[in-house]
Amino acid sequence: MAVSAAIVIIGDELLSGIVQDTNSSHIARRLSQIGIAVRYKATVPDDSFLLEQELRRLMEKYEVVITSGGLGTTVDDVTKRTVTRLLGTKLVLRDRIVEEIRNHFVARGEEVPSSCYSQALMPQGAVPISNPKGTAPGFAVETNGRWLVVLPGVPSEMVVTLDGAIPLLPRDETEITEYRTIRTTGIAESKLHEMLREVVQEKSGSLAFLPSITGVDIRLSVRRSGTDAAEGLKDLEEMVLSRIDGWVYGRDDETLERIVGYLLTMRKLTLSVAESCTGGLVKHRITNVPGSSNYFLGGVVAYHNDVKEKLLGVPKSILAKHGAVSKETAIRMAEGVRTLLSSDIGIATTGIAGPTGATPSKPLGLVHIGLSTSEATEWEEHRFGGERVDVKEQSAQATLEMLRKHLTA
Amino acid sequence: MAVSAAIVIIGDELLSGIVQDTNSSHIARRLSQIGIAVRYKATVPDDSFLLEQELRRLMEKYEVVITSGGLGTTVDDVTKRTVTRLLGTKLVLRDRIVEEIRNHFVARGEEVPSSCYSQALMPQGAVPISNPKGTAPGFAVETNGRWLVVLPGVPSEMVVTLDGAIPLLPRDETEITEYRTIRTTGIAESKLHEMLREVVQEKSGSLAFLPSITGVDIRLSVRRSGTDAAEGLKDLEEMVLSRIDGWVYGRDDETLERIVGYLLTMRKLTLSVAESCTGGLVKHRITNVPGSSNYFLGGVVAYHNDVKEKLLGVPKSILAKHGAVSKETAIRMAEGVRTLLSSDIGIATTGIAGPTGATPSKPLGLVHIGLSTSEATEWEEHRFGGERVDVKEQSAQATLEMLRKHLTA
Repeated sequence: MAVSAAIVIIGDELLSGIVQDTNSSHIARRLSQIGIAVRYKATVPDDSFLLEQELRRLMEKYEVVITSGGLGTTVDDVTKRTVTRLLGTKLVLRDRIVEEIRNHFVARGEEVPSSCYSQALMPQGAVPISNPKGTAPGFAVETNGRWLVVLPGVPSEMVVTLDGAIPLLPRDETEITEYRTIRTTGIAESKLHEMLREVVQEKSGSLAFLPSITGVDIRLSVRRSGTDAAEGLKDLEEMVLSRIDGWVYGRDDETLERIVGYLLTMRKLTLSVAESCTGGLVKHRITNVPGSSNYFLGGVVAYHNDVKEKLLGVPKSILAKHGAVSKETAIRMAEGVRTLLSSDIGIATTGIAGPTGATPSKPLGLVHIGLSTSEATEWEEHRFGGERVDVKEQSAQATLEMLRKHLTA
Repeated sequence: MAVSAAIVIIGDELLSGIVQDTNSSHIARRLSQIGIAVRYKATVPDDSFLLEQELRRLMEKYEVVITSGGLGTTVDDVTKRTVTRLLGTKLVLRDRIVEEIRNHFVARGEEVPSSCYSQALMPQGAVPISNPKGTAPGFAVETNGRWLVVLPGVPSEMVVTLDGAIPLLPRDETEITEYRTIRTTGIAESKLHEMLREVVQEKSGSLAFLPSITGVDIRLSVRRSGTDAAEGLKDLEEMVLSRIDGWVYGRDDETLERIVGYLLTMRKLTLSVAESCTGGLVKHRITNVPGSSNYFLGGVVAYHNDVKEKLLGVPKSILAKHGAVSKETAIRMAEGVRTLLSSDIGIATTGIAGPTGATPSKPLGLVHIGLSTSEATEWEEHRFGGERVDVKEQSAQATLEMLRKHLTA
């Protein structure tokens, strides 16, 4: 059995719906990697009485309880004194932490506030956890065989203090979970499910389908003892890939723009992009990748037809005969931008993002993508659903996927 | 006192950290509008025993308990039978719901599955709540003066069934909360706090500062009886605006791209955009607005210096003398794109998004924005912090804000 854990998120703003909690999912994922499973999650207000009650209740049930929030220096921040009272102990000053907080301010050339002393107070017996990202250190304390871990609420600070607490925590290495995400695009969840039916039933691990507007991620997980889990995951991944290989573009947190960037770099090719319906989104994604200036030259957003004609050289006759949203225009746009910017590859999108502009023969969500090199021309037609922004997102994804396929063909 | 409520989110995937819960914040915000305050939130696994225990506990403490999730037809979906057992009653078939689910499938030309009968089963005494977005209806039931509301987990279905449950719920109209968000950009949270110090202390309502990478939203809330709350909010809003007016671009869910779009439409002006460091993000945001093709003609992403020179006509001498990231280049890019696309306004960004490309005199995050019309030229210089993507986001926001100020000057 995995070690069981509960998470307590502290703060009025997280109950009012104003601020969205993302800390608890990070904590859950991080713990699962070392054989600790989160079985319960609560969000409580900045109220010392309620918090104490809740911690007392959960520490009877779960082997590890992790809190996040309420560690600042304002009156709202109740966590430290509540925990101290719960433990029946007192606050003591930790010199090392005073020093760390002092250095934090000095390094920024700021004055050291007196609150740095109150931040360095910890319940007696607690192990302080440094916070290099801020001034609220965390701490962990064992009581009655249970671990209570107290982390700050600011996400970047929570992440780093959680990492500091991990070595202290009990874990069941005989049962850990290994995860892998397989990222697909261009295929429906139901179809993937069908193709992977046997694998789903195999029970050597479990598959979760996580659809989003730009594709379906498949989350593989295998729960076993130490090294067996990694081996089991490898087998499961191979089983999955052998069945859906054509639809997979990457794994874990890889993105199409990173993969495309890597392929362009390896093959020493330059790229330019012309966009109509996506309005700049393809170029935005490409330039999110550090170093993209090595292969991405730039491009044109040709929203108005005059721009398609004047800048990209799409003949007036083609626009008149086939329309702006057509195979012919997409191809001419791709050729046009490639020539205009003297790149090795030109790619172009044109479509109907809505809510207006559709006709019976050209429905909302119709998108043409053209690709041009000095040697060849490629073209794809898609029909996407959803709102304007959804059509843009799906079109950009399909454009990058077409480029990826071209580069790996 | 507002009516007190707790939310219970049901599902293993929400505890493992794989799926992010957004339902609970929606429920909290929606309830606050009718004088119900969420005071506790829990996430529990797909486990009938634990769920029953949790519901029993919370229904002793809170006047309204709302669950979301576990209403499907698979074995994991435990909510309905758990609630039925908790209430000590039995499931009965609701003919109206059978009819609704049947129609749902018929309208899509799909076969009616036998599971539609199991979906139409509800605990005796419960009020069914229609779900026009899916096949899992919700229900609400009063027991011992407490309301238990059971909603599906799919966000769009949760939203519509929650709206159906709202009329049934107890509320304290003598104390409701009215909200307003004031959106600012270009000013630090600490500065806003200083400017609003007196207002914060006024206690006629409360202010929450919600900083993000592109600006600080200030959430105003006033808690009073019915119409007084709206009046109080109006007063508070005026107090806030009179102090920070210059930094405010909109309210609630208004975005800069929508406001700019409105202003361009009103003034019958056309726009073109040249981008370097933002790589297409400004154009992507502008084209997220339906109808933007009426005023946005398009533009150029000039990532490589050759493109700045060749397409936008930035003289080689300016690039050599001042560099690509300079006042001079930004202005020439704005003029260049305006001339190239024959628009009324041209706007351009150039900067160092990182992680490389910085020099001692031109640090990471340095961004120049130029604006050009046939009559005048404007220019701004910024220094942004953060990672590559953060610099892009802040630059795009500053560009749209500069445009907004130009259009309202």
